[in-house]
Amino acid sequence: MQQRIGYIGLGLMGKPMARNILEAGYPLTVHNRSRDAVDELAAAGAQAAMSPQEVAQASDVVFTNLPDSPDVEQVALGPDGILEGAHEGMIFIDNSTIKPETARNIAQRFAEAGAAALDAPVSGGDVGAQAGTLAIMVGGKREAFDAVLPVLRTIGKTITYVGESGAGQVAKACNQIMVAAQMVAMGELLLLAQKTGVDPQRVVEAIRSGAAGCWTLENKPQRLFAGERRPGFKAYMQHKDLGIVLDTARTYGMPLPATSGIMQLYEAMLQSGMRELDNSAVIGVLEAMAGETLSTSED
Amino acid sequence: MQQRIGYIGLGLMGKPMARNILEAGYPLTVHNRSRDAVDELAAAGAQAAMSPQEVAQASDVVFTNLPDSPDVEQVALGPDGILEGAHEGMIFIDNSTIKPETARNIAQRFAEAGAAALDAPVSGGDVGAQAGTLAIMVGGKREAFDAVLPVLRTIGKTITYVGESGAGQVAKACNQIMVAAQMVAMGELLLLAQKTGVDPQRVVEAIRSGAAGCWTLENKPQRLFAGERRPGFKAYMQHKDLGIVLDTARTYGMPLPATSGIMQLYEAMLQSGMRELDNSAVIGVLEAMAGETLSTSED
Repeated sequence: MQQRIGYIGLGLMGKPMARNILEAGYPLTVHNRSRDAVDELAAAGAQAAMSPQEVAQASDVVFTNLPDSPDVEQVALGPDGILEGAHEGMIFIDNSTIKPETARNIAQRFAEAGAAALDAPVSGGDVGAQAGTLAIMVGGKREAFDAVLPVLRTIGKTITYVGESGAGQVAKACNQIMVAAQMVAMGELLLLAQKTGVDPQRVVEAIRSGAAGCWTLENKPQRLFAGERRPGFKAYMQHKDLGIVLDTARTYGMPLPATSGIMQLYEAMLQSGMRELDNSAVIGVLEAMAGETLSTSED
Repeated sequence: MQQRIGYIGLGLMGKPMARNILEAGYPLTVHNRSRDAVDELAAAGAQAAMSPQEVAQASDVVFTNLPDSPDVEQVALGPDGILEGAHEGMIFIDNSTIKPETARNIAQRFAEAGAAALDAPVSGGDVGAQAGTLAIMVGGKREAFDAVLPVLRTIGKTITYVGESGAGQVAKACNQIMVAAQMVAMGELLLLAQKTGVDPQRVVEAIRSGAAGCWTLENKPQRLFAGERRPGFKAYMQHKDLGIVLDTARTYGMPLPATSGIMQLYEAMLQSGMRELDNSAVIGVLEAMAGETLSTSED
């Protein structure tokens, strides 16, 4: 029998993901703090629910996609929350990026109620969310993972069972270490090229297929060269994620000399009015340091 | 008429590159400080020459592939060097990674002698050198680039004309900013995963196809998991290249906050007996800091 799905948190990522689940033919119940996205999905055939608790009561599998750890705690464990509507065998899947410890705590509370919880953060941006090609990294009980794999396949392409509860969030933290390193390296190299009088666009052309090749160099430079710094993935969310990375590292006693330096650049980004820009716009901090602005194709 | 090619510097990169040129059917003259590689290529049909000057006299196009800026200066401009054997229309191509300023100085000296010089550093490692799939980034006169493009195609796959003399070296410096950032980020994320009790191999599986995806995550983790830290690309060469990056940045007034921190980790690597290891073995510095060694598949 087809699982009944619930989706809570219809933002830049959540809305296209919920839509992909709906379009794959699953019965879908949705909830969101602001109403517009709910109406949009209801028009496409989803049911609207008044609370996370209601979503849970109507669903076999409930997804959330929320900004930060306290939001997920509130929606999962708070009043009128998912746990209050949970039932035997229900599976809660959190697509948010939150602290591994919070994910483990939530999983334990759901287990006590005879339900299951998976941490399943994603990578691939709004583009991947729309195309259904996200990477999904999953932590929790293996049986629960197996039970929801078909519905995960409607939103993601590479779906990896990483390990016990929290392991998906650890993988996402690891992902953000690499992504942030690439973003800052891209900013440094584009401005260095321009400072020396060499065309940064030619440099990207020259290096993207060698050992420097990466998702970031494939997807971001042309946007920067076009003068486009809107998200994509917002700077304050990257800053939040790096906060999770460094908190987790401190908890487990892991020094991160490079990432901690990179975090300072995102800190500077937020302090200089760029919090709503794309995470690749961290080049703006370097521009301020260098007294040099990246030329755009229109210049 | 087929160009006569010369190749000087038959090391880990130069030898397979020279071999690819020879196997493509070009007449080849070679020279190397130590004799073994010369004998090997002579057995395959190359001519051996006693000095760079002799190579130049016998060739229309002369390549070098040497460790550092002073080596190239010596071989190109020193006694019995290439310039002394240069003739009208000869083209000198340097595949080494050296300072952009040195490349520009050499190009000017060759131009005064009626010859041309291109800086053409490469990326893609010994694997790419053997397979003939290197990325080659070229600076110098456009006509000279056009004249040697066919022979460059026998050693590389993506061949980009970046700009005037030195622009190829600037592109390579930019390349190394990204590569070093990825190497250190990989080290940090693998150890963070292990510290939290999550399998680093699963984490790599989970993140390599998302926004963290890169050449480094495709090629290096399996070697580290197998306990293999031999080069590949040696740590002291990466350290040398980052020295060029930071020198160039200082010359042109470009702060590089992330790369300068990363350089310190390579500095530490050299100081702790790891100079001959692969550049991915920078994880060893993080292991020492964390009091944690990456587990291998044999553990």
